[in-house]
Order: sequence, then structure tokens, then C-alpha cells
Amino acid sequence: MFTTSSEIQVRYKETDMMGVVYHGNYFTWFEVARVNMLDEIGLSYVDLEKKGYIMPVLECHAEFLSPARFHDKLTVKVIIKTPPRARTRIDYEVFCGEKLLCRGYTVHGFINAQGTPIRPPQYFLDRLNEILGKQP
Amino acid sequence: MFTTSSEIQVRYKETDMMGVVYHGNYFTWFEVARVNMLDEIGLSYVDLEKKGYIMPVLECHAEFLSPARFHDKLTVKVIIKTPPRARTRIDYEVFCGEKLLCRGYTVHGFINAQGTPIRPPQYFLDRLNEILGKQP
Amino acid sequence: MFTTSSEIQVRYKETDMMGVVYHGNYFTWFEVARVNMLDEIGLSYVDLEKKGYIMPVLECHAEFLSPARFHDKLTVKVIIKTPPRARTRIDYEVFCGEKLLCRGYTVHGFINAQGTPIRPPQYFLDRLNEILGKQP
Amino acid sequence: MFTTSSEIQVRYKETDMMGVVYHGNYFTWFEVARVNMLDEIGLSYVDLEKKGYIMPVLECHAEFLSPARFHDKLTVKVIIKTPPRARTRIDYEVFCGEKLLCRGYTVHGFINAQGTPIRPPQYFLDRLNEILGKQP
Repeated sequence: MFTTSSEIQVRYKETDMMGVVYHGNYFTWFEVARVNMLDEIGLSYVDLEKKGYIMPVLECHAEFLSPARFHDKLTVKVIIKTPPRARTRIDYEVFCGEKLLCRGYTVHGFINAQGTPIRPPQYFLDRLNEILGKQP
Repeated sequence: MFTTSSEIQVRYKETDMMGVVYHGNYFTWFEVARVNMLDEIGLSYVDLEKKGYIMPVLECHAEFLSPARFHDKLTVKVIIKTPPRARTRIDYEVFCGEKLLCRGYTVHGFINAQGTPIRPPQYFLDRLNEILGKQP
Repeated sequence: MFTTSSEIQVRYKETDMMGVVYHGNYFTWFEVARVNMLDEIGLSYVDLEKKGYIMPVLECHAEFLSPARFHDKLTVKVIIKTPPRARTRIDYEVFCGEKLLCRGYTVHGFINAQGTPIRPPQYFLDRLNEILGKQP
Repeated sequence: MFTTSSEIQVRYKETDMMGVVYHGNYFTWFEVARVNMLDEIGLSYVDLEKKGYIMPVLECHAEFLSPARFHDKLTVKVIIKTPPRARTRIDYEVFCGEKLLCRGYTVHGFINAQGTPIRPPQYFLDRLNEILGKQP
């Protein structure tokens, strides 16, 4: 298992007339935390796309336990449990302080610029496996 | 089972640099179709909130089979399979013509303005049960 | 002067914790109405991009007179006052019934896929001039 | 004149199929930078709303000189040139490194929870005047 964390502050734009964050916006925070995680382990998503690999979301899920509010400072944990294959699952937990607000996951594939499913690039697999191997 | 359909046309704003619709935006379309469904059966969501009931999303899920693109005219089907209880699940299917692009669901609870979970109002349950009973 | 109208219904996602529509979302409605206007006069924006022309927003403005609320059915008027040149200005008015909620404009240029400013295509200019000429 | 700066990193969600950031999203960044500026001078916007004051956007404007792209690290400068009155104008400049990408402004009023225009609270005016007086 491999874990990183990102800090997010809730934007006014992200709230709705319920006075809390609109559910669909958590997927944007998952994206921010996922991109930061890749940056941290030296796998820039910008470079990946420049090399012709695109990582679309094939599936996504979230459970909302408690609402996030404007200006809250949140921690978004990214968790990779298993080595990536044709499909890679990434888990997320969103905390406000110690309180878990949301749990979710995304499943990604790899496609080329023409939209054809392809194998993830070897350097990408190698690096993720290395990271996963190193961690208990 | 009870089904209604809404028409959506993809906005430029809803696309991302992959050239297709950003995954999180499907949940906004689910919302549009859900609100239309409630309107169609005489259960206005605006009225519901005025009466002090709020229907937050407790869980949401989507699977993406094929991408939606700018200007596509889509049909979002809303499907209610079982009578609502404390938690109500609603299913969705997004089509472009005959092609299924996305399948998903949302799970809703009922809370009051203070955020306390409450039973759905009786007129709401009655109407949904009536609709579900009428349909095969 | 040439005018068309589009109907928009406010989405829950478009509201914020003030209980009204977030100001930035009006620019998305301007986009929807602008694309519809082009469709109506036979100038598909999808085709334009396929032909290698992109029409970025160079400037945008809005004044908010009265708030739009969830579920409101709005009319977005698009107004073209002068023939397009290197820069094309388009005006908008957003109404809820008879009430003017918002007035704004966008200014567009034409660029190619490499981002270089280019002249608008002749068929595009011709059609807009034809439309403008026909109307008082 | 009084100036503060906020750092923003472009989210994938904020791009569109042109491959650059959608114009309407700059207004969200203006909001983030405005809220940070208020925090920095001890005028929490959260507190302001708790005290019953709301600061809606009455007008907004942006000019786009050069596009922002996914993952760009941007600096959003907030500039207050004149003391607030019934209407307060705030200016913004968005930079990527040394390059100016966008220039804009928002104009705000003050309303109470019922939507009635009201005078800004005295502590708010005093603090802004103090800040403006101190700076050249």
C-alpha cells in the first residue's frame, strides 16, 4: 500500500444552495490529489500525455459521511493498494481535521490519442511497483 | 420499476483537454434528470426544500463505457427500481442515440434544514409508491 | 442587429451557498446560447473546429441586476450588433420571464490549432453579414 | 493601493477541449485570491457571512492575453485601488511566471440575508481604509 496526502481549501464556487459542497466536486479533488501523488513519485501526468498516454476514468465512486463547507481546509489521502494492470484502481479519503468526510475510488485505463486501449508504459508500471514494494 | 428520460446537450465547458466530457460532470446530468423526473411525477424538488426537506447525495457511482463529446445530444434515463425508504437509490443510463455511454446511481437520504436525518414526507413516499405500483 | 434566444433551466450545481447562481456560471450560459445561435444560422461550431478554426474568448463581461435561482427557466438572448472582424463582439441578456437578470458580452478572436491568430473563414463572415443585412 | 498574491495550480477539470483553461474558470480563481486577501488582512469572509453580510458580485470582467494550461502554477494578484463604498471594485492579474495571462475585476455590493442592499460593516471599512492608508 502506498499513500500520499494533498491539502485542499474549499472554494465558494464548490458549494451549492444546501450550504455545503456539491457532491460532484469531490471527483475534482480526487483528481488534484491523484496528480499531486504522481508528481511526488516522479510520474508527471503532463509528461505521460506528452508521451501519448491518456489515463481516462473508467469508473468512479464516492460515499459522503459528513459535508464539507466553504473555506474548510481538507486533506485528501490517495491510496494505492495493488499494482496497476490494464485497469488501475486508486482510493481516496477526504478528511477535515480528524473527521472522515468522504471515501471513494476511481478506476483508470490507458488509451492512446486515438482512444484505443493500450498497456501502461513500462516506466510507469516499474515506478509504481517500486513504490508499492518499498512500502509495508 | 419506473423510468423517465431527459435530453441533455453537451456544453463546451463540460469538456476537458482529453477532448471529451470530464467524468465528474455526469453527476450534474444525473441531477438534471432526477429533478426532471420528480417534476414529471408532480414531486417538485423546489417545493420539497421549501417544506424543509433536503435530499443530499449519500453515495454516487458511475461507469464510463464510451466518451461523450461537445454538442452531443444525450438521453439520460432515470430508473427507480425499489420504493424509497430511509435511503433511496436512483439509477441512471446515459445514451448517445442507441449507444450506452455511462451507467450510474445515486443514493439519497432525507435531512432537515439542521442536517438531522428524517423520514421522507408521507406524500412523497405515497406518490413514489403509486408510480412504482402502476408500472410493471 | 441580429438576435436569437435560448432556454436554460438552472441546475442545482450552478447555485452556491448564497442560494443563488454563482456569477461565473453565466458565462457557460452565454456559451450555450452562442453555440445555439450559430447552429440556428447554419454555422456549426463543431464544423468550424473541424475545419481548423478555434474561436477563443478574448474578453468577457457581465453585470448582475437580479439573481437567478435553482430551477428558474431563463431566456438567454444573443445579440450581434456589428459584422465580425478580426475580433467579434457578441452581447447577451438573461431574462427570467420579463425580468432582466444579467447583461454581458464576450469578444472572440479566431486562431488555428497552433494558436496563431487568423482571419475568420470567408463562409463564416459571409453568412454573418447576410444575416446582419437582412435584419433591421 | 493594496496588493496580495495567491498561488493556484491549474486543475484538469478547468481545461476544455481547446486544451487550455475555460474562460469562466478565471472568475473562480479571482474568488480564491479575494478570499485569501481578506484572510490575510484579518477580514474573514466566513465571519462576514456569519454576521449577516453577503458580498455578491455585481459586475465582473476579464481580458485574456495568453492561455493557462493544465498543471501551470499561477500567481493571482489582487489589487485594491480605492476605498470601498456602497460598491467595491477589486482588480486581478493572473501571471504564469513573469507572463501576464489575464487581467480582470469584480465589483461587489453588500446585502443582508434577505437580499436588501446595506452599508458594509464599519469594522470592514475601517480595516480596508487602514490597509489602503498604510500602503503607498
